[in-house]
Amino acid sequence: MTIDEIVIEGPQPTSSLEQRTRTHTWTSGRPVTDYAHLTGEEILLEWIAGRIPEPSICSTMGFHLTEVKPGTAVFEGEPGDHVYNPMHTVHGGYLATLLDSALGCAVMSRMPAGVGYTTTQLNVHMLRPLFADSGRLRCEGVVLHQGRTMATAEARVVGVENGKLYAHATTTCAILAPRPSA
Amino acid sequence: MTIDEIVIEGPQPTSSLEQRTRTHTWTSGRPVTDYAHLTGEEILLEWIAGRIPEPSICSTMGFHLTEVKPGTAVFEGEPGDHVYNPMHTVHGGYLATLLDSALGCAVMSRMPAGVGYTTTQLNVHMLRPLFADSGRLRCEGVVLHQGRTMATAEARVVGVENGKLYAHATTTCAILAPRPSA
Amino acid sequence: MTIDEIVIEGPQPTSSLEQRTRTHTWTSGRPVTDYAHLTGEEILLEWIAGRIPEPSICSTMGFHLTEVKPGTAVFEGEPGDHVYNPMHTVHGGYLATLLDSALGCAVMSRMPAGVGYTTTQLNVHMLRPLFADSGRLRCEGVVLHQGRTMATAEARVVGVENGKLYAHATTTCAILAPRPSA
Amino acid sequence: MTIDEIVIEGPQPTSSLEQRTRTHTWTSGRPVTDYAHLTGEEILLEWIAGRIPEPSICSTMGFHLTEVKPGTAVFEGEPGDHVYNPMHTVHGGYLATLLDSALGCAVMSRMPAGVGYTTTQLNVHMLRPLFADSGRLRCEGVVLHQGRTMATAEARVVGVENGKLYAHATTTCAILAPRPSA
Repeated sequence: MTIDEIVIEGPQPTSSLEQRTRTHTWTSGRPVTDYAHLTGEEILLEWIAGRIPEPSICSTMGFHLTEVKPGTAVFEGEPGDHVYNPMHTVHGGYLATLLDSALGCAVMSRMPAGVGYTTTQLNVHMLRPLFADSGRLRCEGVVLHQGRTMATAEARVVGVENGKLYAHATTTCAILAPRPSA
Repeated sequence: MTIDEIVIEGPQPTSSLEQRTRTHTWTSGRPVTDYAHLTGEEILLEWIAGRIPEPSICSTMGFHLTEVKPGTAVFEGEPGDHVYNPMHTVHGGYLATLLDSALGCAVMSRMPAGVGYTTTQLNVHMLRPLFADSGRLRCEGVVLHQGRTMATAEARVVGVENGKLYAHATTTCAILAPRPSA
Repeated sequence: MTIDEIVIEGPQPTSSLEQRTRTHTWTSGRPVTDYAHLTGEEILLEWIAGRIPEPSICSTMGFHLTEVKPGTAVFEGEPGDHVYNPMHTVHGGYLATLLDSALGCAVMSRMPAGVGYTTTQLNVHMLRPLFADSGRLRCEGVVLHQGRTMATAEARVVGVENGKLYAHATTTCAILAPRPSA
Repeated sequence: MTIDEIVIEGPQPTSSLEQRTRTHTWTSGRPVTDYAHLTGEEILLEWIAGRIPEPSICSTMGFHLTEVKPGTAVFEGEPGDHVYNPMHTVHGGYLATLLDSALGCAVMSRMPAGVGYTTTQLNVHMLRPLFADSGRLRCEGVVLHQGRTMATAEARVVGVENGKLYAHATTTCAILAPRPSA
């Protein structure tokens, strides 16, 4: 089972210096390449169901896979003050990681059993500042092209409550030839 | 003072399921926009000296600013198994966040006192898989163009020990007009 | 009136060396910045109507603006053997130029009278080889974000007859402050 | 032999409408894939020497390959008023095509005999307006990474006389497996 309980101790940030501590947990499982008998979509559905643990980046950043269907993957999360940049807005890397996750899993949702993929290029457009209290974000990735050796996808990060578009991205993924069975 | 003590408890990951916990700490200070009397380079040098706390993303991901001079910024870090993707290699978002940090701070190192910037576009090329035990990484960002309203920069992630190039990126940042003094 | 008559003389290319000549014409008019009393959409509609001449790149490459509405611009064209790359397929630069045109004009279609824009970043994904006889292409650009100082857009190149997606792209444009009236 | 004589008739552009005609010529040869016994570098050196005709895009746009060594390719050219955008500055597509050419040929210069490549992603940063009378441009492309299935490269466009940086770009190319001999 995937466990993700995040505790941030101490008062909210103010202009004075104060030490803050965050503890997060995840379940260390097996790489998805070990599930060579399942399609990408099947693996992702097991992940949502909690029968395959989510990768550790989800707990570290604070977002989760919530929906998957062929060619589409959705992540949701609320950035906290543990992902601040020097301006005390949410670091562009949080958005890039969220977008990369939705893009990669969208591509993965179209992979046959035993076929892997890897991101070779990620292009992110950041549109407006995002604060720790901006609320819940939804990031949907959609495959645009799936060829024999390459796939592309696009994704957008939208505020669940305010509907604002914060960032969008595209990716090129290389499709890895299936490994010969043992 | 910036404090960053990371404790990962429990045994190293195996193929069996096991819960892992990570606790990290950071100092919550003021956004750099509060230091309007300092140039970007001066702020970054204070950050390295520990007199301005590093932003929380550094503690969350596990990397740190190590060098700065006008037009250049260097971050170093060792990715742990808290930034895994589904394949149990280091998530592309870790690389994107590291690159975005070096790119942004390279641009910041050229900003006069009171002038801000924001990343509008980030383009990342990922070249090879990176594992939690790949060792220390060095990411150097360098400004390529600094105009009146826009700057661009490039950055590369190289393994400190093996010299391998893992990823490279470019960015476009918008330069924000100085805010009128109160 | 915009005139664009392209004559390519000589036989179709074979494996033997042969000299080929292409003559193309365009009307040299005024830069659109001279039409400061018209909105971007009005200028583009005048362009389609032939009352403002199309820019010379259209004649050089061989594509034309065909549709415009707020936030959307469509170009169509048939690449010829004058835009070959070393492999004798259509050069990626043809696709990039077509995409950049649709992206830029989509942004322009949302500009108030007297407000300009300039492309700062263009990201192109190329998906499959395109041949001189692949037939008519349609490239639609759509604005994704329009802020006060920046806009982003996406565009796709699709074969009119075969429906195939050949390339897609995104852009970041800087919005230029209106020039003070004389 | 490669022939490229460009004749632009009529007076220089003014604010009045006037028809302009451009005639350009090129030699139609064989795709470089026909030279499967030559390495990429050897093909490019034959191209510079005029023994393999340059592809037609060079004549259409007005730039030429001038230097090549392993991992590096240089194109030079002077944009004319046949590559104007609606603002009557040089179209971003001219820069993208020039950059894509230098990037692709830099990658090609490292290909063994019989091994092809194709551009999958092109990322261009445009920095300042470029006019038809801005003078000669030099675009140097350099390989950053060459793997078994993928290569990346970067390129910059600089004014030969003024030394200004006009644009820079990166690319990801897929390396195509050698075709089996007949």
